[in-house]
Amino acid sequence: MIKLALYGYGRLAKGIELAAKKTEDCRIDGVFTRREPFAVQAQTDIPVYGAEEIFSFSEEAFDVVILCQGSPDLPRVAPKILQRFCTADGFDMHERLPSYFLAADEAAKQNQKTALLAGGWDSGLFSIVRLLLEAALPDGNTYTFWGKGISQGHSEAIGRVDGVVSGTEYTVPRRAAVAAAKKGKTLSLPKTALHRRECFVAVKDGADKRKIEREIKDIPVYFRGYDTKVRFCSAAEAEKRKETLYHGGEVIRTGRTGEGSEHYANFSLRLSSNPEFTGSMLLACARAVYKLCKEGVYGAKTVFDVPPSYYSPKAIEELREKLL
Amino acid sequence: MIKLALYGYGRLAKGIELAAKKTEDCRIDGVFTRREPFAVQAQTDIPVYGAEEIFSFSEEAFDVVILCQGSPDLPRVAPKILQRFCTADGFDMHERLPSYFLAADEAAKQNQKTALLAGGWDSGLFSIVRLLLEAALPDGNTYTFWGKGISQGHSEAIGRVDGVVSGTEYTVPRRAAVAAAKKGKTLSLPKTALHRRECFVAVKDGADKRKIEREIKDIPVYFRGYDTKVRFCSAAEAEKRKETLYHGGEVIRTGRTGEGSEHYANFSLRLSSNPEFTGSMLLACARAVYKLCKEGVYGAKTVFDVPPSYYSPKAIEELREKLL
Repeated sequence: MIKLALYGYGRLAKGIELAAKKTEDCRIDGVFTRREPFAVQAQTDIPVYGAEEIFSFSEEAFDVVILCQGSPDLPRVAPKILQRFCTADGFDMHERLPSYFLAADEAAKQNQKTALLAGGWDSGLFSIVRLLLEAALPDGNTYTFWGKGISQGHSEAIGRVDGVVSGTEYTVPRRAAVAAAKKGKTLSLPKTALHRRECFVAVKDGADKRKIEREIKDIPVYFRGYDTKVRFCSAAEAEKRKETLYHGGEVIRTGRTGEGSEHYANFSLRLSSNPEFTGSMLLACARAVYKLCKEGVYGAKTVFDVPPSYYSPKAIEELREKLL
Repeated sequence: MIKLALYGYGRLAKGIELAAKKTEDCRIDGVFTRREPFAVQAQTDIPVYGAEEIFSFSEEAFDVVILCQGSPDLPRVAPKILQRFCTADGFDMHERLPSYFLAADEAAKQNQKTALLAGGWDSGLFSIVRLLLEAALPDGNTYTFWGKGISQGHSEAIGRVDGVVSGTEYTVPRRAAVAAAKKGKTLSLPKTALHRRECFVAVKDGADKRKIEREIKDIPVYFRGYDTKVRFCSAAEAEKRKETLYHGGEVIRTGRTGEGSEHYANFSLRLSSNPEFTGSMLLACARAVYKLCKEGVYGAKTVFDVPPSYYSPKAIEELREKLL
């Protein structure tokens, strides 16, 4: 049995908790929350502790701690946890990965621990597919589309605008761009033309809606240059929309071999619960971490470093026989 | 530069030769043929040798020998080549893999060599996707569909029927089965209901066509139980149809998490040249073999054992920055 702990107990952690019940080799032995532990009840029969209590446990208590905070917190949290435990997480702030990777790698190596970063579906599954398809078809183009679904990062960016009470952003792929990518065209479109953005925003009484809309549409990287629709709604609706769980996306690669043979590859996901699927994938990543650490492979890793068989509970002989 | 040799020089080898031109780190230094080498001319400026001449080369001459024979020959050929060189191949006779694996593993380990078996698109890419999706969604169903495209094994089975001059088989997925799989249904259909088989058969003068048709449809494993159409044609047409290069297929996994959230994943390929795409993938596999052997990881391997980054010519830092 692989002994796991969940550090943080939001929707993602609850997804992992349910996913563990569908395996025979993983067991969750503790939930750690920054809230008052007595006020938090796990869905299954798992003890709940305060976040700081994790350091009262010995190294042997948990094989892997799955970090369930939001990505902005992980670069601060992971190196601390790695002092004593291996970790897995679904970090997805791509531009900040290099610095997070260095910090986690140093902490993990110093303490002979293993950390798998960015192991969700994107980054994660989609990353593996992008790499494999680029290696198999080096002369070609890859496009990734996300949605329709909520982007946490964009929603939080709206929330930081002055006068906003609550905001939710849906990322929606633009049909024309998807169709062009599927035709194998080298899209000369800017990145901003691949998706559009639908925002539902609740504002304070008397706030200047026109100014807020202008400010949202001008947030650099997140919204500037995108086709962005801002709809104002009640705080109740904005909060309710945050409960939207469905998501999905696709990776498309078109490429050429030889004197011009054209090939097309597509990997797509349609998820009715993003946190539950991501949680299920992270559980598989925690299994990989457990195996890597047992073999003495320490340091920070990503899905690019992990042999596929490490994610599976099955023996390699069975995998070769049934899935190869 | 990774120094490669092609053992066998049919359509697959020619695909690899063209694929190598699209990389900056792989070079093909020799082609080995069972035909008369003076009668064979490579597409690019590569020397051609007789098959047995490979043992006149030193271990250092080639980092990896890519085996380009048909699958039935590989279990005999690979252990011989592994006496002196690492190998990669696209073995695709699933039921014979376990015994081939053992023989290759023993030869490779004895000689401190690495052999990557079954590294095409199925077995190969599709196998990786099946494993990842099963690990991420353990409660679910996976279906693989192939075609429309030629099956070498089925075509050869037709050729062995008494009175047949030449036969070509197209595997065609059955639309109703694909549609049902995409809906997430647990198909209670037998394996024979997932594909139908279209055969083009040239027979000897005066042969009993009705008897031949009956015999083809009754070949166990390959045809018995399938919806099989047999069309008789001229030897010229049967040969011409063997030139059909397009192929493709898809892996579908549907699964559930939590209390019933439904998820759908699909990986599909549409290839205008099966040998060129397979060749391009095998080249990436040869690169992985080169890296594994340099690290002292000897023995037989499959794609389940290989970290994704090993297929790529790019440094891991660049992969993390650009593809994660």
